[in-house]
Amino acid sequence: MSKFQPVRGMRDFLAEEAKTMRHIEQTAREIARLYGYEEIITPVVESYELLAAKAGEEMRHRMYAFEDLGGRKVALRAEFTPSVARLVATTLKRASKPLKLFCTGSLYRYDEPQYGRFREFWQANYELIGSTRPEADAEILSLSYDLKEKLGLRNCYFKIGHVGILRGILTQENIIEEQQNQIMQLLDKKQWNDALAVLQELGASQKCTKTMKNILETQGKDVSKVLKRAKEIVKDYESAVAAVDNLRGIVDLAQEGEAKIELLAEMGFARGLEYYTGMIFEPYVPDFETALGGGGRYDKLVELFGGEPTPAVGVAHGMDRLALAMEKIKKTIKFLASDKERVIVIPIGEKLIAKALELSSMLRKAGISVEVEVMGHTVSKALQNASKRGFTDAVIVGAEELKKDKVVLRDMEKREQKTVEIKHLVNEILRD
Amino acid sequence: MSKFQPVRGMRDFLAEEAKTMRHIEQTAREIARLYGYEEIITPVVESYELLAAKAGEEMRHRMYAFEDLGGRKVALRAEFTPSVARLVATTLKRASKPLKLFCTGSLYRYDEPQYGRFREFWQANYELIGSTRPEADAEILSLSYDLKEKLGLRNCYFKIGHVGILRGILTQENIIEEQQNQIMQLLDKKQWNDALAVLQELGASQKCTKTMKNILETQGKDVSKVLKRAKEIVKDYESAVAAVDNLRGIVDLAQEGEAKIELLAEMGFARGLEYYTGMIFEPYVPDFETALGGGGRYDKLVELFGGEPTPAVGVAHGMDRLALAMEKIKKTIKFLASDKERVIVIPIGEKLIAKALELSSMLRKAGISVEVEVMGHTVSKALQNASKRGFTDAVIVGAEELKKDKVVLRDMEKREQKTVEIKHLVNEILRD
Repeated sequence: MSKFQPVRGMRDFLAEEAKTMRHIEQTAREIARLYGYEEIITPVVESYELLAAKAGEEMRHRMYAFEDLGGRKVALRAEFTPSVARLVATTLKRASKPLKLFCTGSLYRYDEPQYGRFREFWQANYELIGSTRPEADAEILSLSYDLKEKLGLRNCYFKIGHVGILRGILTQENIIEEQQNQIMQLLDKKQWNDALAVLQELGASQKCTKTMKNILETQGKDVSKVLKRAKEIVKDYESAVAAVDNLRGIVDLAQEGEAKIELLAEMGFARGLEYYTGMIFEPYVPDFETALGGGGRYDKLVELFGGEPTPAVGVAHGMDRLALAMEKIKKTIKFLASDKERVIVIPIGEKLIAKALELSSMLRKAGISVEVEVMGHTVSKALQNASKRGFTDAVIVGAEELKKDKVVLRDMEKREQKTVEIKHLVNEILRD
Repeated sequence: MSKFQPVRGMRDFLAEEAKTMRHIEQTAREIARLYGYEEIITPVVESYELLAAKAGEEMRHRMYAFEDLGGRKVALRAEFTPSVARLVATTLKRASKPLKLFCTGSLYRYDEPQYGRFREFWQANYELIGSTRPEADAEILSLSYDLKEKLGLRNCYFKIGHVGILRGILTQENIIEEQQNQIMQLLDKKQWNDALAVLQELGASQKCTKTMKNILETQGKDVSKVLKRAKEIVKDYESAVAAVDNLRGIVDLAQEGEAKIELLAEMGFARGLEYYTGMIFEPYVPDFETALGGGGRYDKLVELFGGEPTPAVGVAHGMDRLALAMEKIKKTIKFLASDKERVIVIPIGEKLIAKALELSSMLRKAGISVEVEVMGHTVSKALQNASKRGFTDAVIVGAEELKKDKVVLRDMEKREQKTVEIKHLVNEILRD
């Protein structure tokens, strides 16, 4: 038995799993193309300082951080947004706006491994940079919806909220950002009572605590109703009212389109990352507790990294979770167009190996997936092996047939074979 | 100015560079399909012990190694082969042979950054597992050649050698493996005199030193001639003779095919990795000093990781270097099928934003890349911006035209515009 295993929390993707992941990646790339997002590739290893800047306390502690051989404090990226913000603040600072960027790849967090959560995970990430307007937020919702739909996840819904509502109340109560962050982290984990207790400790007014409590309880699928009630609750907090109005504008645009995106509005919704400033959302499918991704507006991050003040909104889709959700509804297989033809070419005897290689090269030029027998098996053993491994056709190269420019073509499923002219071989295989 | 930069040796790939990398990746995946290699995805983070086992002294010192938060000694993968061998020794140990695996992704080595060498680099990797036969080696050469050809690198040649020739001589002289490794490392760096000096220090016979010296000098493009001479030189070293014969068999198969792979045989050719046991090769293009990849046979690696004795041969193509070589011969651009149509939809006024979103959704369903104006610009400002950003068409959504189910379609290149019915919009755009 081998003592070598993947490191805890890391995974190997074998044939079908790898196909699913690459299919999700390709679909995400196609959505990027349709919406005009340019793909960029950023490094897995970034400076710790960059990744830690606005990650939130919890993520900071779960990073794969270490010193490189040059003594630099680095970490494996735990999300894409800091790298994108770095680019927007530096190399891309003069690019015309809106700047629409797509990236995909693996990320790393030292979380406790569990169903749907791995220490190496994959995301497809879209960022729309340079616009403050609700149609930008709506576009991010819309492309997220399209991605799910193209993957066959038609019954998804988005949990949606707005960081500006909660922060609007807290700011007006003179609660400083650091303390706000602490409260938001608790709300993210649904620890409402703890959050309210912190509020009281900080000496927040009775009215504030009551407003917070009421707003946390305001949620539902009838978004109009929820937002109306929310506006009523926060009416004395000017910037919270503006946040509700902003969310209303986004939701209206997102739902007026052809695709009716199903929404669940939660006024107490918070996300772990500290950098959000506006609308936030997470896609879900029924019977799958974990969010399939998450996104929102972050208007201050680029500035934090030394760039011009630059509004931005984005989303990261969790590819591992999409794969699990697809598997759950058995949508995977259909999307994975396997090769119809898988051909093995078997030479009878050493002398015909070169000819077998030549024929395989001819078939590949016609786009057919071909293997040449490389085990030195006899024909019958080779056919047996080919049958087990799921080949659809076998081309048997024998000296007698070759004299007449022919080979034997065997249909592995029907267990029938016939002699065909080499010049007709491609057509015969494709015709099957 | 931002203080945040990529970590030394790491890179961002922006639009065109990212397209080139993804094009190379897709081409490599297509070659895998044509040759029947299944894609797998292995983790970037592996146990240090696994990666270090047979990496060779030099690579071991250049790994990104660190302790994870659970105190495990881990490292970022510096090549794919140990991960593949781990899988073959464990999860895939009962898979029927030949097992043909493809993987692609980023790898990490703390090398001194220079032209074509980065600390994060990309490879496309193919491994054929389970066959000792020369047609397996020839297949790896053949698919490597096909990959270069599909990328437009038609003038490539392969430097080729055989580890068994050098090791055959050394083994017969009773030089132990560790010392052999030391000599091979020197030969890899072309430090022939140092290698010969070590031989003398170890008390190797006069005859051995002379044979080694002669064999190191034996090279050339006329492979038949080189191999004939090599066989003569090593005639007293039985397993070295067998190695020459093995190489001759591989070369014959590789060159008898349709594709005449140009070879440069070097009998003193060694590669840094310790695990090679047979044929080794590196692809090159003229005017580009660095190898575009490297591969060879490693029959003992799987066993080392606790698996059954399993012959294997494989190749890793350096995707960064392929990109540089393609750029050099200006082959890049043609392969990057940019979208012919890039459409921007501009609503005149707030009230028509929802309609603009609806139209954009319709166009995307027809496969067209579409952006909706999200900056809140006036039409003239939006058109100016769209022109700068290279859009081919603009759809202007105005209230007057909408009453008649029409919109204005502007050809951005010809600077002409006309009013078209919405039901004809897709065709009008695609017809341009």
